[in-house]
Amino acid sequence: MSPRLPASESALPVVQMHPYRWGDPARASELPASAQAMLDGLGITPPAQGPVDPADVTLPEVALPAPVRAALEALLGAQHVRTDQEARVGHTRGCSTPDILRLRAGDAADAPDAVVYPATHDEVVAVLRLCSEHRVAVVPYAGGTSVTGGLAPVRAGFASVVTLDVRRLDAMTAIDEVSRTATLQAGVRATAAEALLAERGYTLGHFPQSYEGASIGGYAATRSSGQSSAGFGRFDEMVVGLTLATPTGTIELGVAPMSASGPDLRQLVVGSEGTLGIITSVTVRVRRAPEVRVFEGWRFPDFAAGAAALRRLAQDGPRPTVLRLSDEVETAVNVADPTEVGAASPAGGCLAICGYEGAAADVEARRAGATAVLLDAGGEPLGEEPGEAWREGRYRGPYLRDPLLDAGGFVETLETVTFWSNVPALKRAVTEALMTTLGVDGRPVVVMCHVSHVYETGASLYFTVLSVAGDDPLGTWLPAKAAACDAIRASGAAITHHHAVGTDHRPWFEAEVGPLAVASLRAVKRTLDPAGILNPGVLISAEG
Amino acid sequence: MSPRLPASESALPVVQMHPYRWGDPARASELPASAQAMLDGLGITPPAQGPVDPADVTLPEVALPAPVRAALEALLGAQHVRTDQEARVGHTRGCSTPDILRLRAGDAADAPDAVVYPATHDEVVAVLRLCSEHRVAVVPYAGGTSVTGGLAPVRAGFASVVTLDVRRLDAMTAIDEVSRTATLQAGVRATAAEALLAERGYTLGHFPQSYEGASIGGYAATRSSGQSSAGFGRFDEMVVGLTLATPTGTIELGVAPMSASGPDLRQLVVGSEGTLGIITSVTVRVRRAPEVRVFEGWRFPDFAAGAAALRRLAQDGPRPTVLRLSDEVETAVNVADPTEVGAASPAGGCLAICGYEGAAADVEARRAGATAVLLDAGGEPLGEEPGEAWREGRYRGPYLRDPLLDAGGFVETLETVTFWSNVPALKRAVTEALMTTLGVDGRPVVVMCHVSHVYETGASLYFTVLSVAGDDPLGTWLPAKAAACDAIRASGAAITHHHAVGTDHRPWFEAEVGPLAVASLRAVKRTLDPAGILNPGVLISAEG
Repeated sequence: MSPRLPASESALPVVQMHPYRWGDPARASELPASAQAMLDGLGITPPAQGPVDPADVTLPEVALPAPVRAALEALLGAQHVRTDQEARVGHTRGCSTPDILRLRAGDAADAPDAVVYPATHDEVVAVLRLCSEHRVAVVPYAGGTSVTGGLAPVRAGFASVVTLDVRRLDAMTAIDEVSRTATLQAGVRATAAEALLAERGYTLGHFPQSYEGASIGGYAATRSSGQSSAGFGRFDEMVVGLTLATPTGTIELGVAPMSASGPDLRQLVVGSEGTLGIITSVTVRVRRAPEVRVFEGWRFPDFAAGAAALRRLAQDGPRPTVLRLSDEVETAVNVADPTEVGAASPAGGCLAICGYEGAAADVEARRAGATAVLLDAGGEPLGEEPGEAWREGRYRGPYLRDPLLDAGGFVETLETVTFWSNVPALKRAVTEALMTTLGVDGRPVVVMCHVSHVYETGASLYFTVLSVAGDDPLGTWLPAKAAACDAIRASGAAITHHHAVGTDHRPWFEAEVGPLAVASLRAVKRTLDPAGILNPGVLISAEG
Repeated sequence: MSPRLPASESALPVVQMHPYRWGDPARASELPASAQAMLDGLGITPPAQGPVDPADVTLPEVALPAPVRAALEALLGAQHVRTDQEARVGHTRGCSTPDILRLRAGDAADAPDAVVYPATHDEVVAVLRLCSEHRVAVVPYAGGTSVTGGLAPVRAGFASVVTLDVRRLDAMTAIDEVSRTATLQAGVRATAAEALLAERGYTLGHFPQSYEGASIGGYAATRSSGQSSAGFGRFDEMVVGLTLATPTGTIELGVAPMSASGPDLRQLVVGSEGTLGIITSVTVRVRRAPEVRVFEGWRFPDFAAGAAALRRLAQDGPRPTVLRLSDEVETAVNVADPTEVGAASPAGGCLAICGYEGAAADVEARRAGATAVLLDAGGEPLGEEPGEAWREGRYRGPYLRDPLLDAGGFVETLETVTFWSNVPALKRAVTEALMTTLGVDGRPVVVMCHVSHVYETGASLYFTVLSVAGDDPLGTWLPAKAAACDAIRASGAAITHHHAVGTDHRPWFEAEVGPLAVASLRAVKRTLDPAGILNPGVLISAEG
């Protein structure tokens, strides 16, 4: 191992995304020839018509009552209350494939009437009070990368829908280098947060695939988990403090790292998806930026052997910083290397990625220990090349969806988490649900899966589905997604590991926690948001 | 380092405690001569009268309405509805020094009217429904070791008070060795849990000082933290699933290790202190029982230097399993060795305890790494003797209180937690509050402090106060305790790190989280416990 300076995640710019194309326009991707060849092999051809230009999308009339608009403008300044085409289309839904397909087809029925841009916590509270008085629904918007309908609330019963974009809350307001904490406003984009921390030699270490688009507030609101969670933990484990703006006032939580001061109410706010209030600021634990990074590939003969190896590391250590395992299909399709998706892959087996980040001695020790375990568990070392290919390409995957949709393909992902003993049955059940619902009438379907996050007691499973768009891609996909969710629920697993509930997973979430837990959440919502304006229909159904 | 078989915590028996004397009667302690000498030096002499015998305590009339008693007997069997002296006195309050002093003085005003012993979750639900219908308050009782008034609810407005003792829910109902989880009923005593797990080669690794008295349900309800938390984590980190019985039905949580399925509602139940429901079963993460244990003492020139060393290990590792630091006063009083309390201690400085448990290679690696850090941070190694003395005596401390009270002394503890940068100011403020309120009129006072738990971002501070009982120990202590709580709040720290809120900390807890958070908790309570019968006045004040 030669120590190397890390390629800093903080070098990625803060970009303004296209309404339905992912990421930095400068990094937009063509479909690799290998992927096109795969589509050809599956008989997938481009649709007759391309997507509607965002400027040509037809928007619903602005339903915002004039007095509310005037009051919002008085609060925030007229330039921070936008009703123009660009703002409204740019805040229509999130980034799931159904969201994208709807907007590509020119369907902006879920567009907000207006987008407001408060600059302070107090302005957020004031907007919420105003909207509560006037029964105007409010959609909190941070990075806008939801893939579960978290930005498409149920509008019924509301005078209007306003999106509250927190992007002007973009400062690091405090850093405590003794306690290793940083206070970041909700609108600080993920890449900006890393850049701010890197100046002092720190990192958050939170790198979900949405990294180029996500924001701090969204991480907290959706209970995000990053690709380095084996080493850096989940976002909920990084949060030590929160400020929540609600229509009834402010909640400040987190006077200590952990305590026995009653329930941990931070964990009631984290994952509340904008339904209880708008998180305006998050205090997070930070760590020293790593001195060294080493990423390696390993091959296992099959998924069961690979999963057993990951389980040993997760339970008995030593624990890599990144630990992932692709199943046989995903390995064969070569998803781990976005520049070569669909290319002939190394023959057979399952690819695991083990990454180590930290101080040089720590990386060396963990790598030596983990290598011994992986060898003993039947792993075949593939060296740093596949590891580095994965690391280099880790944020490239989502860029491929746009040219893939352009080419007539359909791709979507879903994910779940369960205890180790249930992993094989869960994987079987979800795969079968997707194959049998999508694969009718000879439609080509590829279902790939990887273990994306590990815990001592279990692991997440992340599925990628590749198919043909056809004439009615939503009509084909939505029943398949429902069947997959049914399979997850029937398997006793969680309906989402890190994508969150949104509107898409709501029925299964409610079944997962049961009616008394849902009633408890509703009671909290009624207390903080008595008019029910905050993201109605997200997470929990509106009260009858 | 010679690998050694651990002295198993699971060898400790499940004991029935005396109503006001701690622990296993067979291990009851005399005051060491060194401690008696210290009391003599402080001019402390035994009181004229010894404590009232539990059999002679005068109890209030049993106020349980006859129809409720009949219904309870029909539900549980007459032998599981007790109103006798032994049951009622044995369930009067908990184990704080004020609790003990009141009972020693024959004050059993808080005795329940009856103690009920359901054997199943369904029986717990049925008891709660019945008591809810009849406005009978219910005090959940697991180990009975509360030191914050968690077992002395506010009785006003209730027809009667019944204690629900979960001791018959005493089974390990499942163990999943693949996922490394075990499901333990709430009444499984801590020592029994370790014995059950040890049979399969596992440990929970949760060893609070209350270990000999505590139960699984109490660990969860109070958000407990054990002395090995640096290595094994806090109890809230061990919980993967919970079953909660409420007057309105059952909540089951924890389908996966972690997820993005909304807020983590497990963390709303953990720490709810019996106010939202009664936890009947907990699924916990377990680990392999350690192969090796090494405990060492270190001396630092002062508390600041020691705290800085602990902080380095907590933030950058490697992390020992146990990591503690006594301040100058506690070191001088030699509290770390209960057999020699008050004896002449090693000259000056602050004693740190570093314990390592695990597989042999892991212990060796962490110990080598931590030793380098501790040396670099100015620590002087004292070898294994003081470490082993601490480990051997780790559960002996509470036994000393009884002979100390018999001898006319007063001793009590309190604790808090804050971020690292705030540790010095918090320690100063609490110490000063205790010294100035207790030390008036020449009363002898010793305030000792140690860092009991460390986190990346902060640490807990645990204070032990030694003084003279005098004629009115409660009248002297309660204002001092209030002053310490005020100082904690004014310092921005948490009112409790692991003792919980109970009734004693309630006003400061409510100030700590603020009125909207309290209103949110009340809303949940109203949903699950509409008659408000569950531990009224504990954690949050009753609704006006």
